Amino acid sequence: MPYVSALPRQLVETAVERTVREHGPVALQYGSGQGMPRLREQILEVMALEGIRGSVDDVVVTTGSQHALELMAKLFLDPGDVVIAEGPSYVTAITVFKSFQAEIVHVEMDEGGLVPEALRATIVRLREAGRRIKLLYTVPSFHNPMGVTLSWQRRMEVLEIARDAGILVLEDNPYGLLYFDQAPPQAMRSIEEDGVVYLGTFSKTLAPGLRVGWALAPHAIREKLVLANEAAVLSPSSFSQHVISEYLDTADWRGQIDTFRGVYRERRDAMLAALAEHLPGLRWTVPNGGFYVWLRLPEQLDSKAMLPRAVKELVAYTPGTAFYADGGGRDAMRLSFCYPTPDFIREGVRRLAAVISGELTLLNEFAQTQPLPAHPERQSVLPPNVG
Amino acid sequence: MPYVSALPRQLVETAVERTVREHGPVALQYGSGQGMPRLREQILEVMALEGIRGSVDDVVVTTGSQHALELMAKLFLDPGDVVIAEGPSYVTAITVFKSFQAEIVHVEMDEGGLVPEALRATIVRLREAGRRIKLLYTVPSFHNPMGVTLSWQRRMEVLEIARDAGILVLEDNPYGLLYFDQAPPQAMRSIEEDGVVYLGTFSKTLAPGLRVGWALAPHAIREKLVLANEAAVLSPSSFSQHVISEYLDTADWRGQIDTFRGVYRERRDAMLAALAEHLPGLRWTVPNGGFYVWLRLPEQLDSKAMLPRAVKELVAYTPGTAFYADGGGRDAMRLSFCYPTPDFIREGVRRLAAVISGELTLLNEFAQTQPLPAHPERQSVLPPNVG
Repeated sequence: MPYVSALPRQLVETAVERTVREHGPVALQYGSGQGMPRLREQILEVMALEGIRGSVDDVVVTTGSQHALELMAKLFLDPGDVVIAEGPSYVTAITVFKSFQAEIVHVEMDEGGLVPEALRATIVRLREAGRRIKLLYTVPSFHNPMGVTLSWQRRMEVLEIARDAGILVLEDNPYGLLYFDQAPPQAMRSIEEDGVVYLGTFSKTLAPGLRVGWALAPHAIREKLVLANEAAVLSPSSFSQHVISEYLDTADWRGQIDTFRGVYRERRDAMLAALAEHLPGLRWTVPNGGFYVWLRLPEQLDSKAMLPRAVKELVAYTPGTAFYADGGGRDAMRLSFCYPTPDFIREGVRRLAAVISGELTLLNEFAQTQPLPAHPERQSVLPPNVG
Repeated sequence: MPYVSALPRQLVETAVERTVREHGPVALQYGSGQGMPRLREQILEVMALEGIRGSVDDVVVTTGSQHALELMAKLFLDPGDVVIAEGPSYVTAITVFKSFQAEIVHVEMDEGGLVPEALRATIVRLREAGRRIKLLYTVPSFHNPMGVTLSWQRRMEVLEIARDAGILVLEDNPYGLLYFDQAPPQAMRSIEEDGVVYLGTFSKTLAPGLRVGWALAPHAIREKLVLANEAAVLSPSSFSQHVISEYLDTADWRGQIDTFRGVYRERRDAMLAALAEHLPGLRWTVPNGGFYVWLRLPEQLDSKAMLPRAVKELVAYTPGTAFYADGGGRDAMRLSFCYPTPDFIREGVRRLAAVISGELTLLNEFAQTQPLPAHPERQSVLPPNVG
C-alpha cells in the first residue's frame, strides 16, 4: 500500500471541491468508455516524463491499471496460450493470466532485470514445443517484487527479441517516477510504439482509492480496449477522473512526486541498514526506486512455511512462492518498505531476523536426528543474488 | 442517462467533504475486494425496500452493476453456452455475454413481462438440442428496453421453472425503486435465495459517475465473485464507496428517490401524451417506472434504416435491433424519457412523428412502382403489442 498520508489533505480537498462545484452534473454522469479527453491529455504529460510520445487518441482510461491488465488478458488470451513473464512476477498479473486459462512461463532475472539470452532461449523452447506465445509481461522499472530495473541496453535487446518473435510486450510501469537517486532508463514504449502496450496508474503517484489507471496502445488494440472497457464497466468513474484532472491542474504534482520519492527513499535506506545490521549473512536486492526489496533466505528455509511463525512475532512479508506460477520462490521473500515508518521497518527487520534465526536453530536441531527434506526444484528456480 | 441535475449539489458536497475530512487516508487507499463493510450494511437497507433479506457477507461491491454482470459472465460462461434473456434485452448485457462467446436465446415478452410458457418451451427445445444453459438473465421491473414489469405470479412461476431446470437466475434491477404510481412486485431475490444472483446499483438512485453497484449472491458464488473482482480491479474505488456511504448517512436518500420518481413520472406523462397526440395510429408500452417506452412502428418501416433521417431532424432513439442478439426488433424502437425535459420530449416526439410520416410517404410512393422488400423473419420476432 502506498503511503497516501504523505499527500497533503488540502491538495485533495481543492481538487474535490472544484470537481463538485465546477463539474457537478458531468462528474456525476456516465462518461466515455475511453475516458475524459482532458485527462487523457494530462496523462500524455505524465508519460512524457519517461520519454513517451503518443496521441491522446491512443490512451484508454481504466479502473486502475489492474483493469487494463484484465482487459488485455481478455482480448488476447485463449486457453493454453503462453504469457512470458519475469521470474518472479507481479502476483495479481499471474492471477489475471491464469483466470483466462493461460500458462505463465517465467524467465530468469538478475541485477539488470530480465536476462535477454534467457528470454531468447525460452521463446525457442516454447516454439519448438508448439506453444502459442501471446504476450511478454514485464515490469521493467523497480520491479515488483524484485526491486531491480531493466537496463537501457537490455530494453533495446528485449524489444528486438519480441519484435523478431512477433510477441506483444505489455509494459507495466507503476513505479517508474518513484526513483530515489537517478531516474530509470526511459520507458520501453519510448523506443517502440507498435509492439508495446504501456500501462500506467495514478495509484502510486497520487492515490489508489480513486482507481484510475490507463493503457497507451497501438491504434487497433486501443479500439478493442475501449469496446472491452465499455462492456465491462460502461465507463470509468467520471468523478474520479475529474478529481485527478483537477489535481493535476491545481497542485504541484511533480513536487508531490518528489515528496513521495523522499518518503520512500528514507524507508528504503532504513530497510537496507536494518538488513545489514540484523541479517548480515543473507543477500537482498538494492532498489533504486519503487516499494520492494527481495530477500534470499538460507537455502534450508522455506519462506511460506515460516510465515505463520513470523506473523506470530508480528512481522509480515510475502513469500516468494506468491510470485511464481510454477512453485518457485520458496527460498525468497518480498519485503515492502512503502507503508511502514522507518522505525517500524527497523523493528520489523529485527523481528524477522529473530524469526529466521529461530527457524534455523529449529532446523539444525531437527537435522541432528534426520536428513533435511529435499527441495528438488531449488537449483532451477533460485533467483540470482543481486544484492 | 439519468437526470443527475435533480440531485441537490449540497447533498453531494456534504458527502464528499465528509469523505475527505473524516476518512481521507482510508478513502484514498486500496480497499477490500468485496467492498466496505459499512456500505454493504447500507446496501442491505436499500435492498430491504424491495423485500430482500440477506447477509452483509454475501454483498459484493462492484464498479457499477455492469461490472458485476461482467464478472458473473466471466465466472459462468464457456464458449457455446446459452444465456436465456428476454426478447428484447439490455444491450450491454448482450454485449457482455457475447464477449465470452455465449449465445443469447431470447424468450417472448408481453405486458406482464417474460412469458413463463415461452420460457419453459425454450428450455425444452434447447435441452433437446443438447445445449448447455448457464443463466437466465432478466430485468423484471421496468424492463430495459420495454418498460414492462414481471407480475408477482410470473416471478413465482419463472423461479420455479429455473429451479426445476437447475438454471441460475441473474436478476438485474437498476430501476425497481423508480416507480411512478405503485411499487413493482418485490424482487425475485426476495422469494428465492439459492438460485438467484441479484444485481443492484446506485447509478439511477444517486449518480452513475461514482460507478458503484453490487451483487448479492449465494455464498459459494460470492466467494468466487470477490476473487474475480480482486483480479479485475484489486478493489472497487474506496473514495466512491465512502462518498456513497456518507451520502446515505447524511442525506434523506429515500426522499431524494421520491424526487427522482416525480421527475421521471412527469417525463413519462409528457412522452405518453405526446405519443397519443402525434402518433395515434401506433402502439407503445406504458411503463409504471424506469426510463423507457418501447414503440412499435408500422410494419413496413425499419427503425435502424430510419435512424439517419431522424438524427438529421435532430431526434434520436435506439433501434430495436440493438436489443436482440438475433437480428430481431427492426419494427420497434426504445424511447428514453429520463434525461430530456418534458418540453424537449414533446418536441422530440413531434419530430419523430414527422420522420415516421415522411418515411411512410416515401415507402408508399416507392411501393407504387415495385413490391415491398420482404422481411421473412418479421412474424417470428415481432414483440407483442403491449400498449
